[in-house]
Amino acid sequence: MFGIIATWRMALEGITEAKEMLKDGASCGDAIETAVRAVEDFEFYKSVGYGGLPNEEMEVELDAAFMDGDTLDIGCVGAIKDYANPVSIARALSKEPVNNFLVGAGAEKYAHRNGFERKNMLTERAKIHYHNRVKESKDLELKPYSGHDTVGMVCVDQGAHMSAATSTSGLFMKRAGRVGDSPISGSGFYVDSEVGGASATGLGEDVMKGCVSYEIVRLMKEGKTPQEACDIAVTNFDKELKKRRGKAGDMSLIAMNNKGEWGVATNIQGFSFAVATEKEEPTVYLVQFDEAGKQYFEVASEEWLENYMKTRTAPLVRK
Amino acid sequence: MFGIIATWRMALEGITEAKEMLKDGASCGDAIETAVRAVEDFEFYKSVGYGGLPNEEMEVELDAAFMDGDTLDIGCVGAIKDYANPVSIARALSKEPVNNFLVGAGAEKYAHRNGFERKNMLTERAKIHYHNRVKESKDLELKPYSGHDTVGMVCVDQGAHMSAATSTSGLFMKRAGRVGDSPISGSGFYVDSEVGGASATGLGEDVMKGCVSYEIVRLMKEGKTPQEACDIAVTNFDKELKKRRGKAGDMSLIAMNNKGEWGVATNIQGFSFAVATEKEEPTVYLVQFDEAGKQYFEVASEEWLENYMKTRTAPLVRK
Repeated sequence: MFGIIATWRMALEGITEAKEMLKDGASCGDAIETAVRAVEDFEFYKSVGYGGLPNEEMEVELDAAFMDGDTLDIGCVGAIKDYANPVSIARALSKEPVNNFLVGAGAEKYAHRNGFERKNMLTERAKIHYHNRVKESKDLELKPYSGHDTVGMVCVDQGAHMSAATSTSGLFMKRAGRVGDSPISGSGFYVDSEVGGASATGLGEDVMKGCVSYEIVRLMKEGKTPQEACDIAVTNFDKELKKRRGKAGDMSLIAMNNKGEWGVATNIQGFSFAVATEKEEPTVYLVQFDEAGKQYFEVASEEWLENYMKTRTAPLVRK
Repeated sequence: MFGIIATWRMALEGITEAKEMLKDGASCGDAIETAVRAVEDFEFYKSVGYGGLPNEEMEVELDAAFMDGDTLDIGCVGAIKDYANPVSIARALSKEPVNNFLVGAGAEKYAHRNGFERKNMLTERAKIHYHNRVKESKDLELKPYSGHDTVGMVCVDQGAHMSAATSTSGLFMKRAGRVGDSPISGSGFYVDSEVGGASATGLGEDVMKGCVSYEIVRLMKEGKTPQEACDIAVTNFDKELKKRRGKAGDMSLIAMNNKGEWGVATNIQGFSFAVATEKEEPTVYLVQFDEAGKQYFEVASEEWLENYMKTRTAPLVRK
């Protein structure tokens, strides 16, 4: 068995490539890195890698992580600028004996010394988004932060080895130096090849209050299916946040165990995710809720998929 | 009931001050911040705040965190330079609606704009340590990293509110931009006023592989005492690391529940910690192991305490 699951529709091209690799016997580390890089490289996805939306100073600062479920090796970068593929830097860091989590200028120095590709990650489209947001903010009272669509993935290969990885440009208009949950072990991601893995997208500041990815893996270790584990962890923590704080930030979790079984839970409308396994062609699912508020998964229609790409690539006008 | 527990002997002066505050009805937030600041301000403690040992570029980069156990608010700084009290910046960040974890230059900008005290954190003693290490490294093959004595604390006040906080200069000779477990929720610290809190010191790169602080709080929530929770979490995770990696990094955890009961577990020789509660005067304990390898706690003798301060403040000679 092999498989890969990822947050959001944007992961589809990447997991499609990863599935081919896994079929040919590739390691979960190579497959997941390839899949995340595909998302980072596609400029029309505005929350990850190239074309990611900038911080309040119009700088694109990126967070990413890689975890090896066999050794528990972890590598992370936070608030790194002007490198093409943060996930690859994170993976390289996971192989260092120590100094596995580097941020800011130090992370860039490491990337430079290790020959990673430099790239100005700020696209013309991202600049238009920035200018429009600045203009809108002057016009009316707007929710200052939105757009926190991290790509998070969990992968199992034919040898039952597992990996997890994340990559994100974080909150649009975030403060310089802000780090979210994506490079935070246990919050943005966690994986243990003896059990399974999980990854999060949503409001990082809230996800890290509950170590939700770790909790899902722990529940799977206790014998829960990935779906049960996601349901329990997300429902409980969403309730806990509302009890303590009156509200809970957006939170969507994906999980896969070492048999390629998967699960998903979210507390928002409109969450999509992408899965490919030995038995299942690369598929995009939409999470829907029935009248009782119970979530169910619907395969995304051709129309939805076409519309998705059309809106992502539509011309942008500077206001 | 009120109480505070902290990693290492160096916390003694801070928790003594905190105990007086707690007795007078201070909040756990104010008490723990005061206690950590005392450690940060004392120049002879070479792993926290002023006088902390520098990174490989002879820059002192500091990590710190603050967590409010009522709201689960978290504030963190990573790799921040030249501010006197990282824990106070972390606490201020915990009150922001988002952008709660800032690193590097972005964290410094926030601290500057919010009027936190600037200070060159590199002392003459730290420079001597740096030069001596560089010289020794040329002379013989030395273990390149050591000295990761984070101060981590958990506090409960008379209202049964709880807080946790950490502060550290991280690994001596670390890479620029390296972040350890101290500002990582669930790894370096975690607290929930309905249960209790925990904090870690040790090799951050390994602590974050297991979310050990979160795990201890979770075990206490299941009904375990702080001591049972620490024993289970540290023993299990130490075994897990050895199984997967052939070795486990240093790891010492302290915990306190909302009744002021406490526990400690470590996988190293020579760990000390400091406790003060309503019933117990500020006390330094040393963790010892009996012949069967079972840990027990011994109150530090006057001689040990005198010798500790003598070695900390002894004149340093540049080699």
